[in-house]
Amino acid sequence: MSSTRTLIRGGLVITAADEIHADVLIEEGRIVALAAHGSDVAEGWTAGRTIDATGKYVIPGGVDAHTHMEMPFGGTFAADTFETGTRAAAWGGTTTIVDFAIQSPGQALRTGLDAWYAKADGNCAIDYAFHMIMADVNESSLKEMDLLVQEGVTSFKLFMAYPGVFYSDDGQILRAMQRAAHNGGLIMMHAENGIAIDVLVEQALAAGHTDPRYHGEVRKVLLEAEATHRAIQLARVAEAPLYVVHVSAEEAVAELAAARDKGLPVFGETCPQYLFLSTDNLAEPDFEGSKYVCSTPLRPKEHQDALWRGLRTNDLQVVSTDHCPFCFAGQKEMGRGDFSKIPNGLPGVENRMDLLHQAVVEGKLTRRRWIEIACASPARMFGLYPRKGTIAPGADADVVIYDPHTEQTVSAETHHMDVDYSAYEGKRITGQVETVLSRGELVIDKRQFTGRAGHGQYTPRSLCQYLT
Amino acid sequence: MSSTRTLIRGGLVITAADEIHADVLIEEGRIVALAAHGSDVAEGWTAGRTIDATGKYVIPGGVDAHTHMEMPFGGTFAADTFETGTRAAAWGGTTTIVDFAIQSPGQALRTGLDAWYAKADGNCAIDYAFHMIMADVNESSLKEMDLLVQEGVTSFKLFMAYPGVFYSDDGQILRAMQRAAHNGGLIMMHAENGIAIDVLVEQALAAGHTDPRYHGEVRKVLLEAEATHRAIQLARVAEAPLYVVHVSAEEAVAELAAARDKGLPVFGETCPQYLFLSTDNLAEPDFEGSKYVCSTPLRPKEHQDALWRGLRTNDLQVVSTDHCPFCFAGQKEMGRGDFSKIPNGLPGVENRMDLLHQAVVEGKLTRRRWIEIACASPARMFGLYPRKGTIAPGADADVVIYDPHTEQTVSAETHHMDVDYSAYEGKRITGQVETVLSRGELVIDKRQFTGRAGHGQYTPRSLCQYLT
Amino acid sequence: MSSTRTLIRGGLVITAADEIHADVLIEEGRIVALAAHGSDVAEGWTAGRTIDATGKYVIPGGVDAHTHMEMPFGGTFAADTFETGTRAAAWGGTTTIVDFAIQSPGQALRTGLDAWYAKADGNCAIDYAFHMIMADVNESSLKEMDLLVQEGVTSFKLFMAYPGVFYSDDGQILRAMQRAAHNGGLIMMHAENGIAIDVLVEQALAAGHTDPRYHGEVRKVLLEAEATHRAIQLARVAEAPLYVVHVSAEEAVAELAAARDKGLPVFGETCPQYLFLSTDNLAEPDFEGSKYVCSTPLRPKEHQDALWRGLRTNDLQVVSTDHCPFCFAGQKEMGRGDFSKIPNGLPGVENRMDLLHQAVVEGKLTRRRWIEIACASPARMFGLYPRKGTIAPGADADVVIYDPHTEQTVSAETHHMDVDYSAYEGKRITGQVETVLSRGELVIDKRQFTGRAGHGQYTPRSLCQYLT
Amino acid sequence: MSSTRTLIRGGLVITAADEIHADVLIEEGRIVALAAHGSDVAEGWTAGRTIDATGKYVIPGGVDAHTHMEMPFGGTFAADTFETGTRAAAWGGTTTIVDFAIQSPGQALRTGLDAWYAKADGNCAIDYAFHMIMADVNESSLKEMDLLVQEGVTSFKLFMAYPGVFYSDDGQILRAMQRAAHNGGLIMMHAENGIAIDVLVEQALAAGHTDPRYHGEVRKVLLEAEATHRAIQLARVAEAPLYVVHVSAEEAVAELAAARDKGLPVFGETCPQYLFLSTDNLAEPDFEGSKYVCSTPLRPKEHQDALWRGLRTNDLQVVSTDHCPFCFAGQKEMGRGDFSKIPNGLPGVENRMDLLHQAVVEGKLTRRRWIEIACASPARMFGLYPRKGTIAPGADADVVIYDPHTEQTVSAETHHMDVDYSAYEGKRITGQVETVLSRGELVIDKRQFTGRAGHGQYTPRSLCQYLT
Repeated sequence: MSSTRTLIRGGLVITAADEIHADVLIEEGRIVALAAHGSDVAEGWTAGRTIDATGKYVIPGGVDAHTHMEMPFGGTFAADTFETGTRAAAWGGTTTIVDFAIQSPGQALRTGLDAWYAKADGNCAIDYAFHMIMADVNESSLKEMDLLVQEGVTSFKLFMAYPGVFYSDDGQILRAMQRAAHNGGLIMMHAENGIAIDVLVEQALAAGHTDPRYHGEVRKVLLEAEATHRAIQLARVAEAPLYVVHVSAEEAVAELAAARDKGLPVFGETCPQYLFLSTDNLAEPDFEGSKYVCSTPLRPKEHQDALWRGLRTNDLQVVSTDHCPFCFAGQKEMGRGDFSKIPNGLPGVENRMDLLHQAVVEGKLTRRRWIEIACASPARMFGLYPRKGTIAPGADADVVIYDPHTEQTVSAETHHMDVDYSAYEGKRITGQVETVLSRGELVIDKRQFTGRAGHGQYTPRSLCQYLT
Repeated sequence: MSSTRTLIRGGLVITAADEIHADVLIEEGRIVALAAHGSDVAEGWTAGRTIDATGKYVIPGGVDAHTHMEMPFGGTFAADTFETGTRAAAWGGTTTIVDFAIQSPGQALRTGLDAWYAKADGNCAIDYAFHMIMADVNESSLKEMDLLVQEGVTSFKLFMAYPGVFYSDDGQILRAMQRAAHNGGLIMMHAENGIAIDVLVEQALAAGHTDPRYHGEVRKVLLEAEATHRAIQLARVAEAPLYVVHVSAEEAVAELAAARDKGLPVFGETCPQYLFLSTDNLAEPDFEGSKYVCSTPLRPKEHQDALWRGLRTNDLQVVSTDHCPFCFAGQKEMGRGDFSKIPNGLPGVENRMDLLHQAVVEGKLTRRRWIEIACASPARMFGLYPRKGTIAPGADADVVIYDPHTEQTVSAETHHMDVDYSAYEGKRITGQVETVLSRGELVIDKRQFTGRAGHGQYTPRSLCQYLT
Repeated sequence: MSSTRTLIRGGLVITAADEIHADVLIEEGRIVALAAHGSDVAEGWTAGRTIDATGKYVIPGGVDAHTHMEMPFGGTFAADTFETGTRAAAWGGTTTIVDFAIQSPGQALRTGLDAWYAKADGNCAIDYAFHMIMADVNESSLKEMDLLVQEGVTSFKLFMAYPGVFYSDDGQILRAMQRAAHNGGLIMMHAENGIAIDVLVEQALAAGHTDPRYHGEVRKVLLEAEATHRAIQLARVAEAPLYVVHVSAEEAVAELAAARDKGLPVFGETCPQYLFLSTDNLAEPDFEGSKYVCSTPLRPKEHQDALWRGLRTNDLQVVSTDHCPFCFAGQKEMGRGDFSKIPNGLPGVENRMDLLHQAVVEGKLTRRRWIEIACASPARMFGLYPRKGTIAPGADADVVIYDPHTEQTVSAETHHMDVDYSAYEGKRITGQVETVLSRGELVIDKRQFTGRAGHGQYTPRSLCQYLT
Repeated sequence: MSSTRTLIRGGLVITAADEIHADVLIEEGRIVALAAHGSDVAEGWTAGRTIDATGKYVIPGGVDAHTHMEMPFGGTFAADTFETGTRAAAWGGTTTIVDFAIQSPGQALRTGLDAWYAKADGNCAIDYAFHMIMADVNESSLKEMDLLVQEGVTSFKLFMAYPGVFYSDDGQILRAMQRAAHNGGLIMMHAENGIAIDVLVEQALAAGHTDPRYHGEVRKVLLEAEATHRAIQLARVAEAPLYVVHVSAEEAVAELAAARDKGLPVFGETCPQYLFLSTDNLAEPDFEGSKYVCSTPLRPKEHQDALWRGLRTNDLQVVSTDHCPFCFAGQKEMGRGDFSKIPNGLPGVENRMDLLHQAVVEGKLTRRRWIEIACASPARMFGLYPRKGTIAPGADADVVIYDPHTEQTVSAETHHMDVDYSAYEGKRITGQVETVLSRGELVIDKRQFTGRAGHGQYTPRSLCQYLT
């Protein structure tokens, strides 16, 4: 029996709630037991594989609840496939992603979902699940929502931006929220007033303002805050919960905080790019700014404090990446001379756990809160808990041995994402993933990739656990 | 070895973060290991004592961070001694109390603290610690604060109420906060504008309004909210954290929420009496209202929603009891004809865990949040974590086997507090403490008291862990 | 000379700022002088016509900035023509109306405006001006805005409600606001989320909820507040001022107050129906509720306090009527069996000054504030000041002799609006218009109508004077 | 008859509500009539004295509701006597002051009031009235309040600052507010938490921080905001109105705005020094900063925007001067080496109308709002309206001919206040007082002082007119 066992000795186990000096015993892909270091119980354990975590953290594998592998956008595709993207995720200590299947207008949800099942199947190094993007809310797709919830696709993303592409009007949003209130699904919202933004885009281009930095100027803070407020009001009318994705502006955080002070089931996610980058990056010369074009856009530096504060006060609950990389060469360059043609998205799935650990080092977050926003809360929010997001008997053995002392420099030269630049090029970080297990199997072993495409399993999800 | 071990089999372990189907192994007063039910590891465990928790919850012992055993008040003493009070606490599933040592004006903190050490020593059935009430903030007592922090008395309570007794003026408060900011102590505040309240008390009595219900009318909501706001502003000036005790009014919760939205280290506690009782009780005829006289006072029913909401949104972090019982006969009766003479305080140390479980049953709280506000957060807030407040390898084996299905009726006839009435007489509750361990020893064994005075140890505390 | 003069003796002149015991001298349609009662100057005055106002108020004629005479709606027309409507206005002490010319989708603003010029020309008993409703914001109509501003049509109404009829999307709204910011025009907004409301209408009808009271239920408070917030944010983006019409909900007032606390040029109007009527009226049996169908809808009584408070705190600046009467017989009845078919609108142009005086009697407003919200502020807001809205040398002699003591009962039997019911039937009011002058000519003389169709002149307007 | 008349021809009459091209006729100290320029009525007027105001403003004389002539402070006296101070006021276009009579602790209000009657009697160039400073709120002084209200002293100032001097505790404040709620008086509040500030003063001095700029650092914004909030809450408990004097901090304005949004009768005053000066002045070297020591203190420049905004949104209603000058030589110098010994106060009574006109020139205020905050609102607030604060038949003929085009430079060399420096030395201002009438008599005649000590009369006041 002990031959199929893995034993992690000597580390500091960190969960959202506890910091425990304990050895961790894994059997058949699950965590079986924890025992205090040096206790008779722990000492008595034997295993086929023993990992020495002395001086290291033993943490749950990261859950990145917002990725877009191979996503089609403006005639091209996000550069990472499910294979390269999930491998890079593993390198960065993330063991579960929730990607977005996309309904095309005129199609059934089913069609889109099946397409994404097919894209991911057999290609992933780590476990994965899907949200559903609804680009065409109608009587038929509303009915399909119920089926998807039963099938384990329990969250649905709508867009208040991108008219003509993903955009839903307020009536469609209200109907989808009502349906979610009924079937237990969770509505995720891209909250920007895209109708107004498109006017400003047109005006900017007409004025000859084509540089990437205008992407940040036209997608105004006030229009993110407005849409956030509107989404909250519609959710109140529908009596539905709401999860706002990629919150970037202080004023949007304020809308969430005000709603939460009222006790409303409203949640918010931010991303590392909003915490660490700013409009200064968008303004980099020689079209370098295009590397930082994403939506919601990067904001002036002053907004970062509000986001960190929101993470501490739990007005923001989750940090995901919105990983959606496009190469500078050939992809981002499509927008030379017209910022609106730049594919929207940044790479990041590999960097999230490290960047947030850096925030721990700098005193912005506690260690427990790090694990909470990066592992436990996304797992709970999207119905993956307690299999994912914690270290406890019964949980999947998705475990990261994290060295809190190693120093590293982020760079496209060393990263594993299939994209030709890093959004954090040159950034010094203290802390590094050393070893990663996915359901008990070594995916990264002392910084060697030992995983394989196809190990990762599709993981149906239950309902949002903040609400049940 | 196994003879000194205790093994808890088959229960659902609930912590602030996790719900785990695991057996719990205890050795030498500490939790040593958790293993999944039915796993080989768990099956292999043997122990001198095995407790079957099948169908039950296995939860951390409660931490009641606000009790007043044998407290002198208005010429009498709170009815529970450390012996009777801690025994009742154990009956109610609480395994740690933090009581208040009191400085008398003109005395050193040391003198008061030593007196309380002596009162408790050898008498407690469960572990205990002390906060320090500062009734005389001056150069000397400010210096003493540093020593007490080093000694493990890391929190200091000040009063904005009770002029001439415990009252500190804003200058004293500011000085104490500055000192706490320096030495790591945490200021706890009784936030009511006592100077203004005393005017209203005098006017009420002069108008012949002597009934207990006037206690609730003169101690106005606006004056609790005012003092809460003032305490927060003073804490901001001192750059110190703040913990507001026994928050009872919606408007006070709003002040806390506003401060927390700004990211300030401001915390709030409420008590079961504010969650379950109201001014309707204060208005009970035949002087029965006196049983419900405490300060802050009970509020109109409408405030309860705001308190529950605050607990859910984490604008309130802790539920303590402010247990300070006075018998109706002979004690409460001192205030017949003058509500201001009624000793302030209610019994409750035995009821807290059950009442909050009832809230779980009624859907007001999740199970994890129940444990968080009653066990984990008070332990963290007051530097007892991770020894207290969780179930994890390395923690003290303060464990409660809680039967979530048994129904009980709260009554003075059956409770174990040494007071002649219950504030919750006749209330039906689903759920009951079955067995309680304190550092691995049985204190309650299937609803038999098997503990003893003197088992409980004084527990020095480290600093507030929300802040370090 | 004195033969063309009018002299008003002995009254209390009330303006937005002053209460003056003065005689008022009128020459050639203008106020020429004020002199203290009994002064040599006043005593020396002679005039062809002398009006004794002893014991009466001498106030500026009312300015009703929101009327819809003969408005087409759902295949019928508002029951009052410019002739009957302005005559009724005069009876009620109003001497200027600002009505709405309507652009039809696909038409030029010019076309709509000319049609309304023609409707009113030669028919009005009192002076009138026009706002322009923009139902089709496009490049062409945006350019026309500049011309209209120069012509004296300086305000433009947009609708966030009524998709397919008057509705503008957020991009159209933004463009119109930008244009107004440029040309000095003022955007007036019907702030309800009509897209979401139409979903609720459809669902209500599908559920068999056809009674008039469902009109109030589907047009939710949250959706008025949402649209108000959105309009404000769009105005901030456009750096334009904003005037929100017919504010009815407490939450909408709160949005205005928050914006104004920030110093934003945001203004709000309410109407007597929101101040005096409620959803109780909408719920009247036998389809009587249809009489009270208007949009924004009547709200639960609790909202009235917030509206009165907003008028006192100047978070609301203007009370207009939104006068748009439809007869119960034949018109309102079109909506039997389908509340969405009931023509939206109430009669009121005759009742406004009296109802607001009743609020003075009841202590809700001061006399000066009465004149400010009913005369001076609408005149300033819409560029009619100082010709209209005050009593001062140089102003048009639009003057009302108001008897503050007479009691009257509002009734369709005695009112002069051409509609078969009164929204305030049976309401007792203290105060009544006695005599009305329009540019010095008697229109109502001791409660006899002495005016004529055609006396009223079209009055071009200058820019909003809150902003220049 | 015409020999006792004064006629002001050709000016633009500006009141809080109107701008009127009218001639103004004055008889026996009162305004008798206004008539349109060039009208037959106006042309027919003759007078013993005719003032040509062509191209000038004709405005009500300023009402400065906050001055401290000859005030004792820290062993010295404010440098301006009632004679020099009121003369300087007249030079600056102010025709009424409301000064503060002071109760000394242990004395009756009567004693203090009589002393101030005596100081002023026969010495003033312009009309004056008194507020009462209560430095000893007790049963006796509370009863005296009723008598003073009847006598025309209808406002009472309390201090939350200056412990041991003027300070009242919250109980005294509550009692005085209750009494005012009963007798119609208005409580004026110096809102700073003086108890906490004195701790910071002591600590600053102990740290060797003796420079004037530390005056600004210890009197913290948060402690002004705190006291403002507390005063509001106490007023709510007492159901009394409240007027907060010399508001200087953005956060204090926010407290007032929040209260007013609730509809509470809460009012705020600011002063020119907070609008035009800042902590930059307090930090001037060579002890020059002492010239700017006043309480509440000057604030960082960033606060000025909030104050201007508050004046525009009517969250602040009045601009007074808090005129309390101390010479640099000999008086301010008392605080060399100890900022707490610097007499608190600035000169300003002569500069207020000009500084606020400069704000008109710069687009911060409209002309009407200038007159409202400087003349009409203070007159209404303190029961002097309509005798003071407006130009209308019946009002006192306190009239200023103001030249809006003359440029001047403020300087101690040219000012008329009896103090050796100007707080605004060198400031360029467009606009200047040309001629001033007090009850029809020329006090300043084309920039010659033609008044006399003793012309000014004591003016009893009625109740606050915002409330009646």
